[in-house]
Amino acid sequence: MGLTMQELKNDRLLRALLRQSVDRTPVWMMRQAGRYLPEYRATRARAGDFMGLCTNPDMACEVTMQPLARYPLDAAILFSDILTIPDAMGLGLYFETGEGPKFRKTVSTPKEIEALSVVDPQADLPYVLDAVKTIRRELNGSVPLIGFSGSPWTLATYMVEGGSSKDFRRTKSLIYNEPEAAAMLLDKLADSIIQYLNAQILAGAQAVQIFDSWGGALSHHAYQQFSLAPMKKIVAGLIKEHEGRKVPVILFTKGGGQWLELMADTGADCLGLDWTTDIGQARTRVGGKVSLQGNMDPAVLYAKPERIREEVARILKSYGSGSGHVFNLGHGVTPEVDPAHAGAFFDAVHELSQQYHQEL
Amino acid sequence: MGLTMQELKNDRLLRALLRQSVDRTPVWMMRQAGRYLPEYRATRARAGDFMGLCTNPDMACEVTMQPLARYPLDAAILFSDILTIPDAMGLGLYFETGEGPKFRKTVSTPKEIEALSVVDPQADLPYVLDAVKTIRRELNGSVPLIGFSGSPWTLATYMVEGGSSKDFRRTKSLIYNEPEAAAMLLDKLADSIIQYLNAQILAGAQAVQIFDSWGGALSHHAYQQFSLAPMKKIVAGLIKEHEGRKVPVILFTKGGGQWLELMADTGADCLGLDWTTDIGQARTRVGGKVSLQGNMDPAVLYAKPERIREEVARILKSYGSGSGHVFNLGHGVTPEVDPAHAGAFFDAVHELSQQYHQEL
Repeated sequence: MGLTMQELKNDRLLRALLRQSVDRTPVWMMRQAGRYLPEYRATRARAGDFMGLCTNPDMACEVTMQPLARYPLDAAILFSDILTIPDAMGLGLYFETGEGPKFRKTVSTPKEIEALSVVDPQADLPYVLDAVKTIRRELNGSVPLIGFSGSPWTLATYMVEGGSSKDFRRTKSLIYNEPEAAAMLLDKLADSIIQYLNAQILAGAQAVQIFDSWGGALSHHAYQQFSLAPMKKIVAGLIKEHEGRKVPVILFTKGGGQWLELMADTGADCLGLDWTTDIGQARTRVGGKVSLQGNMDPAVLYAKPERIREEVARILKSYGSGSGHVFNLGHGVTPEVDPAHAGAFFDAVHELSQQYHQEL
Repeated sequence: MGLTMQELKNDRLLRALLRQSVDRTPVWMMRQAGRYLPEYRATRARAGDFMGLCTNPDMACEVTMQPLARYPLDAAILFSDILTIPDAMGLGLYFETGEGPKFRKTVSTPKEIEALSVVDPQADLPYVLDAVKTIRRELNGSVPLIGFSGSPWTLATYMVEGGSSKDFRRTKSLIYNEPEAAAMLLDKLADSIIQYLNAQILAGAQAVQIFDSWGGALSHHAYQQFSLAPMKKIVAGLIKEHEGRKVPVILFTKGGGQWLELMADTGADCLGLDWTTDIGQARTRVGGKVSLQGNMDPAVLYAKPERIREEVARILKSYGSGSGHVFNLGHGVTPEVDPAHAGAFFDAVHELSQQYHQEL
């Protein structure tokens, strides 16, 4: 197979995710292929709408590669949307200008949930797998490719609410009033995500991230039952090794800083942190079980480059010496950010992190 | 003075805030005088707009008393808005139907911040103090009255952004690019809030709560500098005792569950918790320094009464035996809640909490 022959020139990301030594802290940025880049906006304009971009493997590859041409990044991430699975389940994803994602159909009754089928990625989401293959070919071993999926709870909120929500009224009504129907929905999503991420891995994804964007909206107790437990099932169901390397799993619950110990027990290799958690304290709390990814506030990129550098220095110092840290923002980069500021961020991580990786 | 002669018939709230023994866990609900009540909607319609209601002491008193007529509550809370201070500073608060609060003027430059004056509540906010006095008279010692203010950071976000915000782009740019100007703004707000809360206490408020609605949007480090430090200044500047009783201070940072140890060191008597924190774990972490208020997810009120009762039971059990717990939601009640469900919530707290307050 071509893929196994292809040597990975920069494996900092994969090594740091597994807490193996590196020469400097690897860095990538959530939503690094995105609206803050003029070249992204140009491709997107050509594609028509957002889903047109996601479903065209060549264009998805093109935007995935754009930030790598500009910046010395240590990873590429598949360009796609977290809502491809509910769309493949037949809910009809669409985007309205200036608003978030919406679904034409929603599910809320036990009957509607029973009628849903687990997704078969080869049949239902071939465009994603084609994009993974195309990007891997284009990367040509320069940096690893990260695949991803939304978490079951996060996907469920969009499916039940029909779009974004402030208070998740309908989804929370479901978990409190119909816990068995909620469990069935989350289980079908977990099974679909296992298939989906495994298909991404077989197509060439070298690490995978589960985005639990809305787990932090749940209570301490409900989080464990309705978000963490299905994610634990996913981690257990994923392919552990491919192309002769371990495929690390990153779990990111935004707003999940209070639950790191529980998340570290899922079997995931790495936890994503938002910026509300001190990364040094997080490192102590997870006690060497997992690596950590994060965690600069994306809003720091609005500040002057010298202030960005100071924040990078603070986070590196808080994490301290040794491997197990993948630098990232605590959430996706926002469209208003100046691309030059993103560059200052990456440069700062590269330059300032070397001192924390000296051989003894 | 009339006030000192007035005996408080139900002092559960004040006792629990100070960790003194009680016969059952006191309960009140953030935004208990609000849109979920038809009688509130009727008064508000008579008042015209929301600020018309806030600035009319008789109407503010009327809506404050409405939930007390319906439910066996252990506290009243002043009906007002957190944004009265920036309004008094001349920014021109207004509400557009279906949208959040807005300001006609914003502040963002050092010069604009320098031009702001510290508020004199007697001169600038007499309607609030009149409302406090009117409500105290009307309560006639039945339950204590809680006064409140927004936190400096929370008020600053509205003043800089001109309204609500998703990512606090302008306010975070200010703290990262102009930390000295930000500090000046927060200091003027802290001084104003000290004057404001002390005036509320002298007018009759028997406990006060600082609502730090947006502190949870800050990084671990920025929270300490830009939200916690100004709140600590406020706590130190408040009148400690009035009418022969201690006036407890409740500090509530929504999304602040990771920072409870730091918050407990401010000198506040009680910390408000949102629903993402397990209250039993929080009790262990603060180690008897403060009491705790909270922390049911407001969305649980969308569930059936028997499910509400189960959640109340869970939270009471997690806190465990002994005083120091004021039951509340983890955030304000939402307009869509059925008033009967709120009633089920209060009843459950009263009935189920007695077992945790047995004399040994």
